[in-house]
Amino acid sequence: MSSDYTKILLEEHEMPTRWYNIVPDLPEPPPPPLHPGTLQPATAEDFAALFPKALIEQEMSAERYIDIPEAVLDVYRLWRPSPLFRARRLEKLLDTPAKIFYKYEGVSPAGSHKPNTAVPQVWYNAQEGIRKLTTETGAGQWGSSLAFACAQFGLECEIWQVAASYRAKPYRRTMMEIWGGKVHPSPSTVTEFGRSLLAQDPDHPGSLGIAISEAVSEALKHPDTRYALGSVLNHVLLHQTVIGEEALLQLKKVGETPDVLVGCTGGGSNFGGLAFPFLREKLAGRMNPVIRCVEPTACPTLTKGQYRYDFGDTEGLTPLMKMHTLGARFIPEPIHAGGLRYHGMAPLVSHVYQLGLVEAIAIPQTECFTRAIQFARSEGIVPAPEPTHAIAAAVREALACRESGESKVILTALCGHGHLDLASYDKFLHGGMQDLELSDEALAEAMRHVPEIA
Amino acid sequence: MSSDYTKILLEEHEMPTRWYNIVPDLPEPPPPPLHPGTLQPATAEDFAALFPKALIEQEMSAERYIDIPEAVLDVYRLWRPSPLFRARRLEKLLDTPAKIFYKYEGVSPAGSHKPNTAVPQVWYNAQEGIRKLTTETGAGQWGSSLAFACAQFGLECEIWQVAASYRAKPYRRTMMEIWGGKVHPSPSTVTEFGRSLLAQDPDHPGSLGIAISEAVSEALKHPDTRYALGSVLNHVLLHQTVIGEEALLQLKKVGETPDVLVGCTGGGSNFGGLAFPFLREKLAGRMNPVIRCVEPTACPTLTKGQYRYDFGDTEGLTPLMKMHTLGARFIPEPIHAGGLRYHGMAPLVSHVYQLGLVEAIAIPQTECFTRAIQFARSEGIVPAPEPTHAIAAAVREALACRESGESKVILTALCGHGHLDLASYDKFLHGGMQDLELSDEALAEAMRHVPEIA
Repeated sequence: MSSDYTKILLEEHEMPTRWYNIVPDLPEPPPPPLHPGTLQPATAEDFAALFPKALIEQEMSAERYIDIPEAVLDVYRLWRPSPLFRARRLEKLLDTPAKIFYKYEGVSPAGSHKPNTAVPQVWYNAQEGIRKLTTETGAGQWGSSLAFACAQFGLECEIWQVAASYRAKPYRRTMMEIWGGKVHPSPSTVTEFGRSLLAQDPDHPGSLGIAISEAVSEALKHPDTRYALGSVLNHVLLHQTVIGEEALLQLKKVGETPDVLVGCTGGGSNFGGLAFPFLREKLAGRMNPVIRCVEPTACPTLTKGQYRYDFGDTEGLTPLMKMHTLGARFIPEPIHAGGLRYHGMAPLVSHVYQLGLVEAIAIPQTECFTRAIQFARSEGIVPAPEPTHAIAAAVREALACRESGESKVILTALCGHGHLDLASYDKFLHGGMQDLELSDEALAEAMRHVPEIA
Repeated sequence: MSSDYTKILLEEHEMPTRWYNIVPDLPEPPPPPLHPGTLQPATAEDFAALFPKALIEQEMSAERYIDIPEAVLDVYRLWRPSPLFRARRLEKLLDTPAKIFYKYEGVSPAGSHKPNTAVPQVWYNAQEGIRKLTTETGAGQWGSSLAFACAQFGLECEIWQVAASYRAKPYRRTMMEIWGGKVHPSPSTVTEFGRSLLAQDPDHPGSLGIAISEAVSEALKHPDTRYALGSVLNHVLLHQTVIGEEALLQLKKVGETPDVLVGCTGGGSNFGGLAFPFLREKLAGRMNPVIRCVEPTACPTLTKGQYRYDFGDTEGLTPLMKMHTLGARFIPEPIHAGGLRYHGMAPLVSHVYQLGLVEAIAIPQTECFTRAIQFARSEGIVPAPEPTHAIAAAVREALACRESGESKVILTALCGHGHLDLASYDKFLHGGMQDLELSDEALAEAMRHVPEIA
């Protein structure tokens, strides 16, 4: 490969053929999910009404590698391997000796990393005879990815979209409908929980936790229907490791190893997908990058939340998971990175953070958008609001290198484009965007409802 | 390359390093542009107030190949070479023995093929000390591409956007602003022509021809400002030939030659960019594809227009060009493929059509959107409304192959994604979209104003 490359591509045959499960490589195992009634470790049967057997096995697997089915690889090939870019123009703009690399997942049909897990989730459900999947979505990245994947394998897809987003961003709904998805605003009149919330407030804005409750309860009603989650769970992070495995191969092609890796964290799947293969290398002593989560100051799950057992949804239908949480009833401020507005964090990301294997910082949204504009004017791509947090963290590192004179290798994930988030940019450019911080009082109030479990 | 590939990629070093000029290979030269006052062939000086010298030279060049400057190649590398896909999933859905290939230009930062010419146009202007470019845009694909390119080389960018689109599609404006562009609705209060139209109708919806007049007149006012056009002209089609040159290389890698090539035509640059390198091969006897233009029934420039000298803009500021035209004062129906709503056609495309070297058909928009939904559900990508015309034509061919049993190789260009056109899909899915045909009466009325030149 010539030394003045802009992007590092892989051939289709170089695409990873297995996912990486970090669990067996960790110094201690993550705490198990608990059945909310018995408070005993949840069993495969506890998940059976929600997920197909193959995914439950992956959720609990102790295998280091899991083969990617050929039918899944076949759909991955529509956009994978994804490119790794050297951000030469951004480096020049920042006048930094650092080398910045970004792995770009916006090349997928849905425009983000989410199809990496949507496709296998749908395929495993199809293999077990499931005919319909339900799910929730916020801004719509996950809902559109699942609708795309369902179209590939002929399943129905029913989506509860947070009502505030359903009203404010009609175009994501259209995208879901193009791929055949059926979309409800949440809270909806379809479920009892939704109806109870609408009775209290007919204009209820909804939240991800509420939408999860609705999608789960609908799946529980029908034997040929299951539920799909777009982040948080072990099997979701597992599927996303194709990102990190590809990035490892790509950096190797140009003879680089990262000194710093930064990724944005909402539910944790984009971060885990990029970081876990590198954490494997670090744990094995083959490289030693600093690995850092980046979250919004308005929803600072890792940096301000508590490491406790909590529910994944608002109604309390899911098993309890040990994770950093702001409380399942917490409704974050309406920041523009909708995908980072979740009260909890992937148990695996929480665990490695608790073990001190990764760091975390929170960045306010106006800094993120400032860096996103610089990124767009130099690198071209308009980032989704979520990865602007990762870009802002990468820029902080690059500017520190300018001061210190170090030429660190910085790796980050640009997990999606912002073509459906231009209203947020408009708000930033025309002066209406404010930074939002979670107050100690609001946090204390939200944490009051978290179950007390030793 | 393995035989079950999905996409055919090229390495950066395989990217073409020169553009192809079809003029010297044509059996007869195209008629020259005329000065509107003298009706004599326009000279380089006639264009000097509008374009930099290097682009005027390209406009009039008889050289077969023109080297792409290194600085332009460097920006191209942000997204080029672009992928060529084999549409295996669409083929399966259609149950056709045909092989369908599509060259995907939506991977560019602006999401279409337009940056292929925006980048060199800005660079040549920058080389000659120009500080600002003006242009027009309809739906916004061209305006955003020029704003992106100006950000790369530090030029100011001022854009007149057709008022109806400015109001209906605020997100494209935001995209132009992200890249630093300044956007006016057209007609605007900035120019005398704009003010005269607003005096007649304060809610004037505008048209591309009007917006061109405004951008041109503003460029003529300032010595450090030039005008940039996103289609129609020879140098624009020249720059777009990177598409066809790459596609030739990519098909060669898998041992295929096209039997049929279809491309959508608005101003003609996407079509020319894909088709001219293949037309060179055809003229040289190295392959024999049928080459077909596809236009909307609401703006059927080639299939219903007349081959006459006409202006490129509504006010009559440009040189006269011999082209298929519906009349410079024609304002097409508001169809959803905004990029295909232009009264004229590239003189080079008109000329090869007149010579019988390429064919043309018109397709109504509901057929196009029907095929676009099938495409999205099989291939994943949501197409822009413009290339849905090319997709619909490719599907017609593929279905004919199903009848005949032939396994033709069909090549088309997916010149952009539809992420900023989802309102059009919403209209299609929810039943409000109608087909629009140009009536003979409307055409006759529009043609009344075209100058009579022998």
